[in-house]
Amino acid sequence: MAIGNDNLPSLHPVAGFRLGTASAGIKTPGKLDLVVMSLPVGATSAAVFTRNAFCAAPVTVARQHMDAGEGRFWLVNTGNANAGTGKRGVSDAVHCCAELARLTDLAATDVLPFSTGVIGEHLPVEKIEAALPTALANLSETGWDDAAQGILTTDTRPKGRSVQCEVAGHLFTVTGIAKGAGMIRPNMATMLSYIATDLAVDGTLLQQLLQRAVDLSFNRVTIDGDTSTNDACVIAATGASGNSLLSDPNEPLAAALYDALEEVCIGLAQELVKDGEGVSKYVAVEVSGGGDEQECLDVAYTIAHSPLVKTALFASDPNWGRLLAAIGRAGLHELDVDLVTLHINGVLIAEQGSRAGSYTEELGVAAMAPEQIHLTVGLGRGLAGATVWTTDFSYDYVRINAEYRT
Amino acid sequence: MAIGNDNLPSLHPVAGFRLGTASAGIKTPGKLDLVVMSLPVGATSAAVFTRNAFCAAPVTVARQHMDAGEGRFWLVNTGNANAGTGKRGVSDAVHCCAELARLTDLAATDVLPFSTGVIGEHLPVEKIEAALPTALANLSETGWDDAAQGILTTDTRPKGRSVQCEVAGHLFTVTGIAKGAGMIRPNMATMLSYIATDLAVDGTLLQQLLQRAVDLSFNRVTIDGDTSTNDACVIAATGASGNSLLSDPNEPLAAALYDALEEVCIGLAQELVKDGEGVSKYVAVEVSGGGDEQECLDVAYTIAHSPLVKTALFASDPNWGRLLAAIGRAGLHELDVDLVTLHINGVLIAEQGSRAGSYTEELGVAAMAPEQIHLTVGLGRGLAGATVWTTDFSYDYVRINAEYRT
Repeated sequence: MAIGNDNLPSLHPVAGFRLGTASAGIKTPGKLDLVVMSLPVGATSAAVFTRNAFCAAPVTVARQHMDAGEGRFWLVNTGNANAGTGKRGVSDAVHCCAELARLTDLAATDVLPFSTGVIGEHLPVEKIEAALPTALANLSETGWDDAAQGILTTDTRPKGRSVQCEVAGHLFTVTGIAKGAGMIRPNMATMLSYIATDLAVDGTLLQQLLQRAVDLSFNRVTIDGDTSTNDACVIAATGASGNSLLSDPNEPLAAALYDALEEVCIGLAQELVKDGEGVSKYVAVEVSGGGDEQECLDVAYTIAHSPLVKTALFASDPNWGRLLAAIGRAGLHELDVDLVTLHINGVLIAEQGSRAGSYTEELGVAAMAPEQIHLTVGLGRGLAGATVWTTDFSYDYVRINAEYRT
Repeated sequence: MAIGNDNLPSLHPVAGFRLGTASAGIKTPGKLDLVVMSLPVGATSAAVFTRNAFCAAPVTVARQHMDAGEGRFWLVNTGNANAGTGKRGVSDAVHCCAELARLTDLAATDVLPFSTGVIGEHLPVEKIEAALPTALANLSETGWDDAAQGILTTDTRPKGRSVQCEVAGHLFTVTGIAKGAGMIRPNMATMLSYIATDLAVDGTLLQQLLQRAVDLSFNRVTIDGDTSTNDACVIAATGASGNSLLSDPNEPLAAALYDALEEVCIGLAQELVKDGEGVSKYVAVEVSGGGDEQECLDVAYTIAHSPLVKTALFASDPNWGRLLAAIGRAGLHELDVDLVTLHINGVLIAEQGSRAGSYTEELGVAAMAPEQIHLTVGLGRGLAGATVWTTDFSYDYVRINAEYRT
C-alpha cells in the first residue's frame, strides 16, 4: 500500500557516473540486491550519515574511507544491514571494500560500503564477493533504473528524481535514487540515497549544499521518530560537464545546483513517506508565524510524532482537540493560544483557543477525507515557518512492526 | 483489559478531610460523576497542573483560586473536560465554584474546579448545580471509595493508595485516589489525583514535597508522550493529627511524610499505566550508569516513546536491535556503545554494541513473554539512574484512538 501512483520518472544519466547492479542471492534468489556505483578520477563527493550512536558497521567504515580514500566506488547491498554485528561487522565491511578494490586496482579506502536489511546477522561476504564481477561488468551511465530497484528492501516501488537546468548557457544534471520503508520497518532498516551531478564542485561546498538540502528534505520526514542505524545520503560531482570548479555558494551556477539538489532531495523524501508500509495518509505539517524556525519545527514534530494525532489521521477524524493539545505541549515559551490558528486542507478548524465559529463537523470530516492532508498551524508570533512530512498510524503499522523478524 | 488484578486497597480516612459523591447525569445516567472534597479551616494545600499551553478552563481557574482563596473545596466532574471551550469555559467553571460557595457560605475563590471527559463541549452547568446539594449531604471522612469511583472516565477500575506511619510516637495517614486511562484516550482526557494527609504542613513545604513526589511518579509514566490539557494532582494537609506545623524538610516527620507521599504517588501512577486501555504489557524502563539523572531519563523516554519498541513489546518480540537503536538516538554526548548493556527481565540481551554471546532466541522469547516487563539499560558512564513506566502499542491502542468521538 502506497499513496498515489508515482512511477519512476525518467532519470537523466550523469556524465562520468556509472552504476552496475547484480543479484547476489542475499535476499530472494534472483532479485537485484547488489549495486556498485563508480566515480571518475577527480570527482568530489560528500555524505550525511545517521546520527545514531549505535551506527552500523558500514557507516563506521564509510566515514573512515571518506576521510582516507579517493571515493571512487560506492558499494551497496540489501538484505543484510550489517548492524549490531560488533567488531566482525566492521571487518566484514572492510573485506567487501577490499575485494572490490582488488578487482578494480584501487585501495580498499577508495570504496564506501552501504548495507540495508536485517539487523544482527553477519554479512554474507562470500555471496557479495561472488556477485561483484557481474555488477562491475554492468557498469553504465544508464544504470540508474536497475540501481533504483537494486537498493530496495520492503519498498513497494523504486524512487528516483532527476533535474536538468541550464544556467548562463551551461546545462547540468542532478539525478538521485533512494530507498526507504525502513523508517517504519527498521528490521529491514535504513534510508539510503545516492545522488550525482556532472558539475565540478569543490568538496567543502558540496558537503555544505548536501547538508542543507538533507536538512530540508530527508531530515523533515518522519514516520515514527525512530532513526535507523544505517541512514546515509551521498552525492558525487563528476565534473564531466566541464565547468570551472564551483567553490562559492553565491555563484549563479552554485545556487542553481543547490535548487536542483533540494528539488531532488525533497522529491525523494516525499516518496519515502508515501511508500511507508502501513501508510494510509500522506500528511504535510506546515507551521508558520513562528519566532524562529526551531520553534516551528518543535510544533511540527510534536504534531507529526503524536500517536494520538496519527491515529486520528488514520480514522480521518478531524480531532482538533488532539492537534491543539500537541501544539500546547511543544514547549514554546509563553505561547499565546488565543493567536493560534489551525487549518486542515484549507478549512479553518480552530482559533482563539477553541473550535472556530465557522467550523462544522461536516466541513471537518470532508477536509480529513482525502489521502493527502495539509495541516496548517499559524502561531501568530513571528515570520518564521517550517514544514515536515509524515503519515498516519494504522492497524497495518502495528501489524508490520509487531511481526516477528523473519 | 488491564494488567493484573489490583483491587482498590483499604483507604484510611484522613481526619478533617471529607468526600461527597453524587450522580449529576453528565455521563451515563445513574453513574457517579460528581465529587466534592472538603478541607477544614486552616488546612494547607498544594497542586501540580499540566504544562500544556492549551490548558483547560478549570486548570486556569483552579490556578487563580489557589492564589486568591482559602482552598476549602475541590469540585470534580467527569464526563466533560471543559477544554477547548474558550472564554465561556472559564465563566462556566467559575459559575460552578460560585454555586458551591453559595451553598456553603464561602467565596467562589475558595473552591478549586476540576473536569475530565469530552473535549470541546460546553460544561453542563445546570446538571452540576442540581447535583451539588446531594454531594454535599454525602460528605464524609469515609467517602474515599465512592470518590475513587466518581472521578473515573474510561478507567476499568478505581485506583487508590493509603499509607499509615508512626514516627517518634506520632501516627499519620496519607491517602490518595487517581484516575487515568485519559493519557491514552484524551477524548476522555486527563490524569487527576487527590491526596490528603492529617499532618499540619506549611504550604511552601507541601508544594515542594508534592512537586518532588509527582516528578518521580506521575511524571515518570508515559503511554504515548501526549500530555492532557487537564492534568492535575492536588494535596491537602488538614493538621488534624495535632503535630506542630512542619516547615523543615529535614525534620524526621517531614521526611516520613515525603516517603509516604512518594509511595502513594508511585503506586497510583503505576495503576494508571496498568489500566491504560489497549495495554497488554506493563513495562518498567530502568536506566543506570548514567553521568546524571537527565541523561538516564533521556534514554528511558526515548525507549518508552519509540513506537517500534512498543510494537515489539506488543508482539513479545525480544527485538534488541530496536532497543539499541533507541538508546543510540537518545542524544547522549559521546556515548561509548561498547559499554552499554541491556537486560530484559534479567536476561542479558546485548553488550559491546552487539547481541550478547550468551543470548539465545529462546532465552529472549521467554524473557519477553510475561505481562510485566523490566527493561534494564546500563550506560557504563556514571552513577546516576532513573526509571519510567510505560506500556506497549497494540491493535487496541489504534482501535480505541481511531474511533470517532462519541
